[in-house]
Amino acid sequence: MEASWEASVTQSINTIYLLFSAYLVFVMQLGFAMLCAGSVRAKNAMNIMLTNVVDAVVGSISYYLFGFAFAFGAGSDSNPFIGSRFFALKDIPNDTYDYSFFLFQWAFAIAVAGITSGSIAERTQFGAYLVFSFFLTGFVYPVVAHWVWSSSGWLSPSSTGLLFGSGAIDFAGSGVVHLVGGIAGFWGAFIEGPRVGRFDAFGQPVSMRGHNATLVVLGTFLLWFGWFGFNPGSFDKILVAYPNTTNQGNWTGVGRTAVTTTLAGSTAGLVTLFGRRLLVGHWDALDVCNGVLGGFVAITSGCSVVEPWAAIVCGFFAAWVLIGLNVVALKLQFDDPLEATQLHGGCGAWGLIFTGLFAREEFVIQAYDSGESGVVRPFGVLMGGGWGLLGAQVVEVLVIVGWVSLTMGPLFYALHKLRILRISVDDEVTGLDISSHGGYAYVAHPEENHPRFYADYVRMQDQS
Amino acid sequence: MEASWEASVTQSINTIYLLFSAYLVFVMQLGFAMLCAGSVRAKNAMNIMLTNVVDAVVGSISYYLFGFAFAFGAGSDSNPFIGSRFFALKDIPNDTYDYSFFLFQWAFAIAVAGITSGSIAERTQFGAYLVFSFFLTGFVYPVVAHWVWSSSGWLSPSSTGLLFGSGAIDFAGSGVVHLVGGIAGFWGAFIEGPRVGRFDAFGQPVSMRGHNATLVVLGTFLLWFGWFGFNPGSFDKILVAYPNTTNQGNWTGVGRTAVTTTLAGSTAGLVTLFGRRLLVGHWDALDVCNGVLGGFVAITSGCSVVEPWAAIVCGFFAAWVLIGLNVVALKLQFDDPLEATQLHGGCGAWGLIFTGLFAREEFVIQAYDSGESGVVRPFGVLMGGGWGLLGAQVVEVLVIVGWVSLTMGPLFYALHKLRILRISVDDEVTGLDISSHGGYAYVAHPEENHPRFYADYVRMQDQS
Amino acid sequence: MEASWEASVTQSINTIYLLFSAYLVFVMQLGFAMLCAGSVRAKNAMNIMLTNVVDAVVGSISYYLFGFAFAFGAGSDSNPFIGSRFFALKDIPNDTYDYSFFLFQWAFAIAVAGITSGSIAERTQFGAYLVFSFFLTGFVYPVVAHWVWSSSGWLSPSSTGLLFGSGAIDFAGSGVVHLVGGIAGFWGAFIEGPRVGRFDAFGQPVSMRGHNATLVVLGTFLLWFGWFGFNPGSFDKILVAYPNTTNQGNWTGVGRTAVTTTLAGSTAGLVTLFGRRLLVGHWDALDVCNGVLGGFVAITSGCSVVEPWAAIVCGFFAAWVLIGLNVVALKLQFDDPLEATQLHGGCGAWGLIFTGLFAREEFVIQAYDSGESGVVRPFGVLMGGGWGLLGAQVVEVLVIVGWVSLTMGPLFYALHKLRILRISVDDEVTGLDISSHGGYAYVAHPEENHPRFYADYVRMQDQS
Repeated sequence: MEASWEASVTQSINTIYLLFSAYLVFVMQLGFAMLCAGSVRAKNAMNIMLTNVVDAVVGSISYYLFGFAFAFGAGSDSNPFIGSRFFALKDIPNDTYDYSFFLFQWAFAIAVAGITSGSIAERTQFGAYLVFSFFLTGFVYPVVAHWVWSSSGWLSPSSTGLLFGSGAIDFAGSGVVHLVGGIAGFWGAFIEGPRVGRFDAFGQPVSMRGHNATLVVLGTFLLWFGWFGFNPGSFDKILVAYPNTTNQGNWTGVGRTAVTTTLAGSTAGLVTLFGRRLLVGHWDALDVCNGVLGGFVAITSGCSVVEPWAAIVCGFFAAWVLIGLNVVALKLQFDDPLEATQLHGGCGAWGLIFTGLFAREEFVIQAYDSGESGVVRPFGVLMGGGWGLLGAQVVEVLVIVGWVSLTMGPLFYALHKLRILRISVDDEVTGLDISSHGGYAYVAHPEENHPRFYADYVRMQDQS
Repeated sequence: MEASWEASVTQSINTIYLLFSAYLVFVMQLGFAMLCAGSVRAKNAMNIMLTNVVDAVVGSISYYLFGFAFAFGAGSDSNPFIGSRFFALKDIPNDTYDYSFFLFQWAFAIAVAGITSGSIAERTQFGAYLVFSFFLTGFVYPVVAHWVWSSSGWLSPSSTGLLFGSGAIDFAGSGVVHLVGGIAGFWGAFIEGPRVGRFDAFGQPVSMRGHNATLVVLGTFLLWFGWFGFNPGSFDKILVAYPNTTNQGNWTGVGRTAVTTTLAGSTAGLVTLFGRRLLVGHWDALDVCNGVLGGFVAITSGCSVVEPWAAIVCGFFAAWVLIGLNVVALKLQFDDPLEATQLHGGCGAWGLIFTGLFAREEFVIQAYDSGESGVVRPFGVLMGGGWGLLGAQVVEVLVIVGWVSLTMGPLFYALHKLRILRISVDDEVTGLDISSHGGYAYVAHPEENHPRFYADYVRMQDQS
Repeated sequence: MEASWEASVTQSINTIYLLFSAYLVFVMQLGFAMLCAGSVRAKNAMNIMLTNVVDAVVGSISYYLFGFAFAFGAGSDSNPFIGSRFFALKDIPNDTYDYSFFLFQWAFAIAVAGITSGSIAERTQFGAYLVFSFFLTGFVYPVVAHWVWSSSGWLSPSSTGLLFGSGAIDFAGSGVVHLVGGIAGFWGAFIEGPRVGRFDAFGQPVSMRGHNATLVVLGTFLLWFGWFGFNPGSFDKILVAYPNTTNQGNWTGVGRTAVTTTLAGSTAGLVTLFGRRLLVGHWDALDVCNGVLGGFVAITSGCSVVEPWAAIVCGFFAAWVLIGLNVVALKLQFDDPLEATQLHGGCGAWGLIFTGLFAREEFVIQAYDSGESGVVRPFGVLMGGGWGLLGAQVVEVLVIVGWVSLTMGPLFYALHKLRILRISVDDEVTGLDISSHGGYAYVAHPEENHPRFYADYVRMQDQS
């Protein structure tokens, strides 16, 4: 028996949509690499780029072998805590999941460790990085993804037996991806402590600027580009018509999600531009980049279920969350070179709360019940939707903070106690690239004006 | 009532096509940022990258609030000069426009200010930049877009009451986008005058090379990539069959547009390669990059309505337009750091004329009447199509030059008179990054070999 | 007569899929440019980036005029060696090929010369580059493409009269693209000889590191991104249902191809990471990048016809092929600055053999007979498919090595004898950018602190 023409068209359309979205999400890995490289000192650029490459290649294998199974392997013996099928893509494709869905989820998984790599930049042993990246991508993250995104997850908004009659709405992962990465980063940065020289003898911060702002801007724009896959792509299927409308369907939701994402990031960037101008007295491009990213992180939870105007509200507060947490971090002498804890953790948590406040009923039903009429479920508190959704959102924040702290905290602490977490002070001052990676990322070639070159060439010509 | 399966398929296909095209157009913003950064001196890199980020974030808000309404808000009270509906996306989505169309147009809008930012690079106060960017993206550009692209625009090739029975064909915006940006840039650069030291006491130009050719090449390729969204994406819908053919439709036109775009840019690049080799005696990578971009700018107007061989003609002359205007600019001591006036203005104008000469009847009918047989309308003069189209094209050139001059000229002049346009000579010599943005884009860290670092670390370890 | 709605939907879906894949493949040109630029010394960065731009612009014209015709111009007078129709896109579009197919193949064609440019980097005259690039892209490569990919090609797996009843399976071109580029690079690098100073008087290699590892990582990730167009895009059509399945079709194959590609590259990267750690004692980011690319090159032949687990096997051995050939190259004092011979040649050849070992019957029938049941054809030896396929694969390796050696070898030798291939020792020590391209890629501006700047500005102000 062959797939009918209608089924073939549907599959083709949805596959194109999901695969190309996955490709865009993959670009975020490049975006992270460039953002991180530009934000650290030149002597550690090679190290942090390698961590981003390693996140991708380690993540591919671990997510293929068991990460995907932990996250989405719900079956007849499904449990709400962790999946148990589809190890090494066994039984894929099936009626529920095709390869394209795996690829989309893979691109998400490798992003998580990339977030955390920023928090522990410039002072972490590479061996420790491999351990933590493998554990985070292969186990800690997939479990959270299972809770929130699998149909059998206990926090899922589309399973049976919804928490508070609602389940948590974390559409593309303000919590599942960004808060997880941010909290993991917090424990890493907290246990490692600040970089040498980051705070002076009086506890005052010493500026430790990244070596290349061009890379930061490049990375930010690439992340923006990739976010068009991350958020609008998270509908999984685009060919779903909504009842009670004449020409709307997931294609409308996908477009609206791209718009809310854009508006939230832009607003946060704009607020940061003027906010920082007032606070520090100049127009700071790097702050604006981080502001934009903070807006994206925050809208990622509710992007599909809020109005465009609400996205502006989301971005507005995301900027202040980031600015405020950065002030707090400095006061507490907490050193996260990429601000990943503040940005992905702080704005991620705000995003979950925001969704509980502003989610619109119609959009919630469209996104999670394909627009079925007659469905009654909680939505945003400020939109008159009761407290069920906000309650579930708060629960998601709390359990993610708890789960990641209970798993990653001990891991980092054990690595610390084993003295394999942080590099030596000599290595830190010299830079990781020399001590661990065979040389600097940037090489000048003054030796080439040396007479030896001529001698060699003459010899070569004699031989030929 | 629910959208029929046929309607859902149509909407899904067209939305995927338009949204992913929009994402590519967005990449052009990154391309501009890298191209501009590489083309200026290192001391101003941060400034010009910030302007590109700001174009995007300011443009998002202004285009959402009113730019889109000015451009496409035609309604029952529609007028041919400016739109008046859809402010803040009110009544979107509707039967005509979905969110995806807004996003596509947004990506176009933010590109315009990016063009102009190149002309006034390295010497403009950031506050003035904010004013001009907001005004250009939010008002000047949308009005032109309304004239040419809205169904109620007076220059539109698809409204009722066509100018000269034809209307202007500016498919993806050689005029609407590039000529607008280029003319705005002309007035900015003209009123600001050349950069300090650009011409010596005898009026001879002094080379003022950009600091990083790698970024220029990176930007050029990213713009090329983005142009595949810009031009082929401008059909808006791909699922439109042409009558009188057995298997052709907009999908054919979209593919042909990608081909004409590629051939025009490549030809212009090749001509520039050899032309500059003859003129200056070496193979200049940066000239070739600009040549390629000039070819793209020129073909952008007629990309959908000309044969591939005609695209080669288009690119050939575009290269000489650019080379020639650059010679003229030097003679007149006109200093546009990115050659934006010459490239986007000059090649943009040539592109409009080119379309009036080479547009093919069959393709015009397909692009603007969905291939309806029996339609009689002017097309390219050299293709036997009469003078109606060329006349409309000339009118478009003239009214754009006039409109932008009458709006942006006075604005720049006012800013100049208020002494808030150009930075001081001290700031210019020091560089904008230090004077306005808190530091250089590139940071070396010689201080890190300082003994203090060790002392700090010992102290930290004592505390832990 | 108008295309039916069903035909229009099919065309639209397949066009979107193929065009956006083509755009991704085009990004590989940017990826090569950045990878190459970062891997050479700063004094030659402009040169190698220009070669990548020139590959694209020269390739556009030559592939439009005759390259495409040589490759795919099979007609009633078709012959198995070279095509003879569709020069300058005559008779395109037709029932078989639309513009989108041309664009996809164009993006492949320009990649070939980009591979070879790496082998002859840092020492080749630009004029010679133009000659070789034109000849390779316009003739040598299209002929091989005709043999393997055209329906009338003698090595094709889908023509009538299959070689060994099988034909060679080179789905996206481990052989047609990468082996061709690698062998061409071998002859170029072999005839030119090593760079000045690459080996010392005792024949020991002297490290000659690239100037910018960030660009290498950027290029690698962009190539990864582009490979999602290269391999999964090579189905040409996505809307093809497989018989004997309920919901599978090319959409399944496309997704699986993206997965196998990812797994092969990741595995190769991981093996290289640990393998090089053992061999050289540090974690080398650049080796990992090359390892990833080696895995991609190897899987490119069999990506659509092997299981995901087999892709891991493919990547594992690809890494060792690359590591081993690099050791051999050093011993033989063979200097290929980008390792293109070893990487694209060596891993490309391994990829062809791998396919002959691991291709699965079901997938071969799906990819080459649209899943028609009852087809009997050879598949992987280790999967029980007999020796027919492996035989054809070996033949492909041999004829590509032979054909490229017989065409490119004499060409490089003639250029060498005419003394227009290699630059002078003075130019090589100075760097190509100064000697041929008018200046370095990177410019510092110390002169700007010179008092003359102030004098100029005062003069300007006096005049205004």
